Amino acid sequence: MALTFDISMSLDGFIAGPDQTLEDPLGRGGEQLHEWIFGLEAWRKPHGLSGGETNADSEVVEESVANTGAVIMGRRMFSGGEGPWENDPNADGWWGEEPPFHVPVFILTHHPRESVTKPGGTTFIFVTDGIETALEQARAAAGDKDVSIAGGAEVIQQYLNTGLVDEFQIHVVPVLLGSGGVRLFDNLNPELQIELVRLVDSPTVSHLRYRVTSHRA
Amino acid sequence: MALTFDISMSLDGFIAGPDQTLEDPLGRGGEQLHEWIFGLEAWRKPHGLSGGETNADSEVVEESVANTGAVIMGRRMFSGGEGPWENDPNADGWWGEEPPFHVPVFILTHHPRESVTKPGGTTFIFVTDGIETALEQARAAAGDKDVSIAGGAEVIQQYLNTGLVDEFQIHVVPVLLGSGGVRLFDNLNPELQIELVRLVDSPTVSHLRYRVTSHRA
Repeated sequence: MALTFDISMSLDGFIAGPDQTLEDPLGRGGEQLHEWIFGLEAWRKPHGLSGGETNADSEVVEESVANTGAVIMGRRMFSGGEGPWENDPNADGWWGEEPPFHVPVFILTHHPRESVTKPGGTTFIFVTDGIETALEQARAAAGDKDVSIAGGAEVIQQYLNTGLVDEFQIHVVPVLLGSGGVRLFDNLNPELQIELVRLVDSPTVSHLRYRVTSHRA
Repeated sequence: MALTFDISMSLDGFIAGPDQTLEDPLGRGGEQLHEWIFGLEAWRKPHGLSGGETNADSEVVEESVANTGAVIMGRRMFSGGEGPWENDPNADGWWGEEPPFHVPVFILTHHPRESVTKPGGTTFIFVTDGIETALEQARAAAGDKDVSIAGGAEVIQQYLNTGLVDEFQIHVVPVLLGSGGVRLFDNLNPELQIELVRLVDSPTVSHLRYRVTSHRA
């Protein structure tokens, strides 16, 4: 029911490093933001991988996966491209034949495209009439589960600034990326108010969950 | 013995809001970053105020106060001004007759000035030959206690980038200041590496302590 997001951020506020390319979509140093998650069973399982650790971090990830009924993401996060789909070398997205979402994924784009259904329950639905329509469709698809915004930063900022986000969780990674990367919190409405609702501690990452308590009408 | 800093930061990475002035030195919205501390006994006592709460937050503050043997700060943080001292309307600093430091405070400036001794153990010493000299002098003054960098952001960044900082603590306040403020972590050396050493949790602020583990030589 809630609109949320769940994202790894460096202590200096970046969700990707500088110089993002198709070969290096997380930018220089950006892979460090996600190392904490790759060894976890809760991440490996939806990615079709066996084994992995269970610990405080994996409980946090498992909870997010269990609560997510639909995903929203920006076109650039989906493929790294822009413009008409027929010219996009990565038009199928980053995730191969069985994407790890296993729920409907709504992609914000200016370029219409038929939905794509993948094995394992992931459907990519392309929405061309804005973030509120995408949210309506995602809510309908999610049923009584949450809608999670996957990114990128600009999409998250747009939803935050409209006051539509209910809660979010930041995984603060003990890394400093320096400068030139993609900041998560930028261009925000200064009237947004938040409160901390939960903090989960581990040696590798600090999980801070906030509720949005008010915003400009 | 260690070089540290201890600073309140908004979740979006700011240590002051936009439009800092002599009347509003923390900038628009910046006072929200410090509200968590004003009610604490551990803050009130060094400020000559009685009463106040004791809780997880006050323990963190008390620990920092107890460990600090000398302070380093930038000229702008000291007075808000720049240029020759005789033209600075706030040349005595922000803190009145009995400043709350109660230890020697080394102020980085381009403009020489005699030291000023205040009641209660605070001495302001003006250092004109750079951050390394200021650190040497502060270490000598601190004895076996820590040297704490009070700010501003640029001074902290300079010390971080030279690899001189040993540990630091960020008090992450559940506030989003929007944009245009003063970012703590900016222009950093991307080869800085940190690890989380402690996290203290309270409903009003999250205290994250990091150790700097390596840096460019």
